[in-house]
Amino acid sequence: MASYKLTYFPIKGLAEPIRFLLSYGSVEFEDVRVNREDWPKLKPSMPFGQMPVLEVDGKKINQSQAISRYLAKQFGLAGKDDWEALEIDATVATIDDLRTKIASWFYEGNIAVKQTKYEPLFKETIPYFLKRLDAQVKTNGGWFVGGTLSWADLLFIAQLDYIIYMTNVDIIDKYDNLKQLKANVLNVSQIKSWVAKRPKTDH
Amino acid sequence: MASYKLTYFPIKGLAEPIRFLLSYGSVEFEDVRVNREDWPKLKPSMPFGQMPVLEVDGKKINQSQAISRYLAKQFGLAGKDDWEALEIDATVATIDDLRTKIASWFYEGNIAVKQTKYEPLFKETIPYFLKRLDAQVKTNGGWFVGGTLSWADLLFIAQLDYIIYMTNVDIIDKYDNLKQLKANVLNVSQIKSWVAKRPKTDH
Repeated sequence: MASYKLTYFPIKGLAEPIRFLLSYGSVEFEDVRVNREDWPKLKPSMPFGQMPVLEVDGKKINQSQAISRYLAKQFGLAGKDDWEALEIDATVATIDDLRTKIASWFYEGNIAVKQTKYEPLFKETIPYFLKRLDAQVKTNGGWFVGGTLSWADLLFIAQLDYIIYMTNVDIIDKYDNLKQLKANVLNVSQIKSWVAKRPKTDH
Repeated sequence: MASYKLTYFPIKGLAEPIRFLLSYGSVEFEDVRVNREDWPKLKPSMPFGQMPVLEVDGKKINQSQAISRYLAKQFGLAGKDDWEALEIDATVATIDDLRTKIASWFYEGNIAVKQTKYEPLFKETIPYFLKRLDAQVKTNGGWFVGGTLSWADLLFIAQLDYIIYMTNVDIIDKYDNLKQLKANVLNVSQIKSWVAKRPKTDH
């Protein structure tokens, strides 16, 4: 069995999909959480100065989505063929686009600019994405792709707390299929166990 | 043989890695280029209202990186095992981070904000990324991963014109290994043919 060590800040953020996947795979992993004040001295030892970083048998790799895709392959959550893998990848990229657009508003330091971004984001962009993601789940029987659990589902639900932390509203509240997806994911026994035992953080 | 139809704006932009991959695979593809003024009426028919979109035997899919990864698998450019596939994916994500950071400055509409972004981007971020990417190519014998051509190499070189269009300087000029990588990619016979025959555009 490979040894896994995950290093990230003490939040869910970009690492939670990785934690969901490792939990789903029922493998032990070291869940290292680095405080902001300790990060500068650690940064030079990390590939491209970034976290999360996963070490697999001592080999370090960065980029959360790439790591999640790798783990998904190990645990059978990356689609039954290349086309399904593509549909999952496209869904993950779409979710990432949505998260990035929300973050671009949330972390905007210029108050005037931030205000101009608010209305297009909340009245147009977010509903535009969620309406289509909701329809996709409806078409696929309660999951994003192929009528069964994939890492796209885990990634979306793992990141939802972080997204909601930024928006400060439950963005899926009006979307019944996305709410069903959330219930489906949180009902997977390994995920249920992880969510019950993970450190409590707001995002 | 599958039929491929690619739809995008009449530029290299986010579609050029897909065009490089289809050319590398020596498959015929329809290279549809939509003018900006025709885009609004086409947008509702595209998944998540985005381009590029690839149609494979009539099935439409969006998200350029996901599409590129799918094609890379068909043409043997996605790594020899799951770990190499992960290293390639992480490299692609890193290149995408760099492009996104440059685009965030380039497309900034607020002149004052744009000015404050200039120095950190050009003096810190771009060199930080390029120095590490250059070292990675040195370690891997003239390619990003595994000592041989992968879709990470094709993606970087396919997007380089677009990146340089934004920065207005040849960002790899001081990086010998990245220049060697560019020469290596442009020397692949199918890529050389594509570059010779593709429509001439500045980005």
